[in-house]
Amino acid sequence: MRVRYGETDQMGHAYYANYLYWLEQARGAWCRDRGFTYRSLEEMGYFLPVVEVFLKYHGEIKYDDDIVVRVRMGEVRRASMRFEYEIVKPGHPKVLTEGHTWHVLMGTERKAVSVPQAVGEMLHRNPADCEPLA
Amino acid sequence: MRVRYGETDQMGHAYYANYLYWLEQARGAWCRDRGFTYRSLEEMGYFLPVVEVFLKYHGEIKYDDDIVVRVRMGEVRRASMRFEYEIVKPGHPKVLTEGHTWHVLMGTERKAVSVPQAVGEMLHRNPADCEPLA
Amino acid sequence: MRVRYGETDQMGHAYYANYLYWLEQARGAWCRDRGFTYRSLEEMGYFLPVVEVFLKYHGEIKYDDDIVVRVRMGEVRRASMRFEYEIVKPGHPKVLTEGHTWHVLMGTERKAVSVPQAVGEMLHRNPADCEPLA
Amino acid sequence: MRVRYGETDQMGHAYYANYLYWLEQARGAWCRDRGFTYRSLEEMGYFLPVVEVFLKYHGEIKYDDDIVVRVRMGEVRRASMRFEYEIVKPGHPKVLTEGHTWHVLMGTERKAVSVPQAVGEMLHRNPADCEPLA
Repeated sequence: MRVRYGETDQMGHAYYANYLYWLEQARGAWCRDRGFTYRSLEEMGYFLPVVEVFLKYHGEIKYDDDIVVRVRMGEVRRASMRFEYEIVKPGHPKVLTEGHTWHVLMGTERKAVSVPQAVGEMLHRNPADCEPLA
Repeated sequence: MRVRYGETDQMGHAYYANYLYWLEQARGAWCRDRGFTYRSLEEMGYFLPVVEVFLKYHGEIKYDDDIVVRVRMGEVRRASMRFEYEIVKPGHPKVLTEGHTWHVLMGTERKAVSVPQAVGEMLHRNPADCEPLA
Repeated sequence: MRVRYGETDQMGHAYYANYLYWLEQARGAWCRDRGFTYRSLEEMGYFLPVVEVFLKYHGEIKYDDDIVVRVRMGEVRRASMRFEYEIVKPGHPKVLTEGHTWHVLMGTERKAVSVPQAVGEMLHRNPADCEPLA
Repeated sequence: MRVRYGETDQMGHAYYANYLYWLEQARGAWCRDRGFTYRSLEEMGYFLPVVEVFLKYHGEIKYDDDIVVRVRMGEVRRASMRFEYEIVKPGHPKVLTEGHTWHVLMGTERKAVSVPQAVGEMLHRNPADCEPLA
């Protein structure tokens, strides 16, 4: 994705809060690679609100930079899960940002629920076996 | 209100989209001056989505600037209404930004509805006669 | 582009300010189609701040919606220019949002300047004759 | 401060990235309590970019909620410092969000610099001894 002008601040690089939008977008793409959308998860009555964020900003990211957010599922617990991230620029070895988010699975009553089998199956799919969504 | 750092862009002044957040905040304060909150309007089952924005940016607004958004109700139609705005800095005569937003009153079915008497009464209150909310 | 979760509000659709980010992104793509980037324009010492926005929101846009922003250069004056926009969903005839932005060309002194020949040439290129940038 | 409508998402509470704007605003107020502004620090040629964020979201924060961000300076190193935060609602004992940010002091060359005496003096002021800025 490309960094938007409105995502920069007067220091001339991307404002630190905007990275969290990119992580969200990367999680959405992670779902699509596994053949479902986060939207469909909500339509099934499940929500994955963020309960913890940790992010280390190593290198500057500027307007119009072409960035890639690498995302992988880390630890999975009974009702929560961790996503891990690295932000890089294609062709540059340096990891510009790294960190994680913890999410709790919530049901329609907005209470934490154990990951049901149907959802667990979706989260553990192998992208190689899936028809990715556009 | 004070302009946030994250509301600036690399040109060094406030990014044009962020003004729309300020207009919203000013509408919220306008309601409070009339003794109700926009939140309470939604709790009553009414929504005021924006259907039109017009904004002229005359002067620069920068980080940490102390700005005031003057807001007044303009035209009111059967199911819609217009708010008019001027953004100024206290002590400076120049109007930095001016414009308007049009809103449609929607009910819980998310369809336009005529402004009911109870809502009309709230919108036409005279702040001088009201206990403003904090 | 896909609507981000963080671009929605509690009414369940995209917040009205976020559309202005999409217009900006569309202008960036418009430049790329003509073989240059807005970033390179700034590196040449030119800026195109927005001095007017007009936007009509006809239809709802929701999380994860796939949207296309059609952009075209409208009127061009000595030191200013207008971009015109239509937001649609691929495969749906309805125009969901339409409007325009006016921009002033500024030089490094942050004063309006006449569009120089080099810049005018870039803005009037025919995409069909250009190597679009990735 | 009051949570803006545009800071919510379709889950009905404040989007996780927007908390980082509030932390920034709280740091700005922290400076004012010590008789200077972050803006003046930049005018002196110093910048305090964020290099690490950690945030735990314990409780929901909703539109129009009145929130207070408690901020205090934690550890200070040669060229970096940590701010610690707690977000609460006035009158409610529960800490809704807690975390920290690490900042590096940078000079005009955008390289880390040791905290100079003049800046160190500002950061270690006792608000009780200061004329707070409006």
